[in-house]
Amino acid sequence: MEQVCFGIDVGGTAVKVGLFNTEGELLNKWDFATKRTGEGKDILRDAADFIKEKITELNLKKEAIAGVGVGVPGPVMDNGEVQELPNLGLGHFNIEEEMRSLTGLKVKAGNDANVAALGEYWMGGGKGYRNVVLLTLGTGVGGGIILNGSVLAGSKGAAGEVGHILVNEKEENTCGCGKKGCLEQYASATGIVRLAKRYLNDSSKASSLRNIPEISAKSVFDCAKNGDELSMEVVEKACYYLGIAMAHIAQVVDPEAFVIGGGVSKAGEILTETVKKYYNANVMDALKNKEFRLATLGNDAGIYGAAKLILA
Amino acid sequence: MEQVCFGIDVGGTAVKVGLFNTEGELLNKWDFATKRTGEGKDILRDAADFIKEKITELNLKKEAIAGVGVGVPGPVMDNGEVQELPNLGLGHFNIEEEMRSLTGLKVKAGNDANVAALGEYWMGGGKGYRNVVLLTLGTGVGGGIILNGSVLAGSKGAAGEVGHILVNEKEENTCGCGKKGCLEQYASATGIVRLAKRYLNDSSKASSLRNIPEISAKSVFDCAKNGDELSMEVVEKACYYLGIAMAHIAQVVDPEAFVIGGGVSKAGEILTETVKKYYNANVMDALKNKEFRLATLGNDAGIYGAAKLILA
Repeated sequence: MEQVCFGIDVGGTAVKVGLFNTEGELLNKWDFATKRTGEGKDILRDAADFIKEKITELNLKKEAIAGVGVGVPGPVMDNGEVQELPNLGLGHFNIEEEMRSLTGLKVKAGNDANVAALGEYWMGGGKGYRNVVLLTLGTGVGGGIILNGSVLAGSKGAAGEVGHILVNEKEENTCGCGKKGCLEQYASATGIVRLAKRYLNDSSKASSLRNIPEISAKSVFDCAKNGDELSMEVVEKACYYLGIAMAHIAQVVDPEAFVIGGGVSKAGEILTETVKKYYNANVMDALKNKEFRLATLGNDAGIYGAAKLILA
Repeated sequence: MEQVCFGIDVGGTAVKVGLFNTEGELLNKWDFATKRTGEGKDILRDAADFIKEKITELNLKKEAIAGVGVGVPGPVMDNGEVQELPNLGLGHFNIEEEMRSLTGLKVKAGNDANVAALGEYWMGGGKGYRNVVLLTLGTGVGGGIILNGSVLAGSKGAAGEVGHILVNEKEENTCGCGKKGCLEQYASATGIVRLAKRYLNDSSKASSLRNIPEISAKSVFDCAKNGDELSMEVVEKACYYLGIAMAHIAQVVDPEAFVIGGGVSKAGEILTETVKKYYNANVMDALKNKEFRLATLGNDAGIYGAAKLILA
């Protein structure tokens, strides 16, 4: 019998749900608002109810459902345990057991950044490779590592936390994680804006950025593409740190390809080409010339990867 | 039937051979000089002949031999292929196939640093953990990563090449790999001596190191233990870079334990304690307080790990 599975991506504002066939085709998708009662298990109950409703609506037979994959914003151990998901008001518990008992289906859970990496590996920018590192450049910098087709979770679920790799020992501002000089402080959307403001402050150079009331990472890349010198310096700096961090990652896991996703990746080739330059300059010969791809699934990477958790 | 297996560690000067039972007990070990004819396959033929001789001598039945594991100094792909082992005069070929046809036994090959890590994980300093990173501080800095009990080889066999992680963007001297500022330039035995000479040159501070005609990494650690201030500064600097590199590694793979081996690790607790301080200062909270162990198998790590390749 042709099987289907659900992929659920639990975010701080919305829960996304996708229905897939085993070939990775997205058959249908939905979303609903994340209930912020402070009682995190409500979110899982909502998701379970939602799925049961869809199963009835679509008249799906239980034996046609391979299972439910769930991505959540925090570290998840291999057995489905989470220590804590403060964003969702969740303490220590086992997501897989909870969701299994709510739905009666096979359940597999993972960290959202890892799950997004799995999605991009399966049907997105990393398709065709078995060893892929995804970097998600959004409000923060997330990472996910796929080795031989499986997510690397790490001993405490914290593998792939590449946004907090130290890249600048001289940084004086503090990162969200409490350290100073993390990659996230330079290569996230927020980090790029911070860098741009710093460059504008420290220099008297003319720049089209000075005419923009609210600078965004997009405006920095747009101005750089239009030849604005100061914006290009900001792009070079962000990509310099990104290239160094990716060189560190390669010295550890030697992937075939890097995939860059998140809002910042909409900048396109200027991003991958500039990063590649600094990557190659800082990695040993045997690791040069990896593939640098852009993510292609956008906000759907999470539901794709969650579904793949079940089909792996 | 109780089985045994051979572990072979091919080095530049000697080939070590160990005979193990499946519980990891070393039953016997031997070594012979590496034949430097420039024709690398001679080395494998020597090793095969040596093993066949021992099999006859010990009257081992073929069905009692689980196989032969081989560690070689260079990147080895998952299928046993090596691109090139310049130290041994070997070009592109498949070690496993070659050795299998020479011995008629099951063969598995791996990179020597990875194989040493597997040995320490199995029966040495990493025993009891499933996710272990070994750093070997010798003439160079080697690394091996064990995830869920298996060696991480990487897509081109270059995973765990942590000696060439960039740790100092300001370095002016060139590393053996052609880059500048690699961990190996500070934390290998050679690197520590280099650092010490630099400190002695750049400062007029009194130091017992000044009375030592030929400074070694051991003398630097010995003087530091005796309270020599300049030696302590050198140790702090080497451990600072080591701690930062290990923080990078943890942000990528989140191991349970680090094991430090190689000649430099004979310094003991002063090394692990100083490294731990800088590691914890540069890693995110979820990754703090990993185990820091010293390797215990010494030069036998390679034969242990090679044997484990067969038993994995």
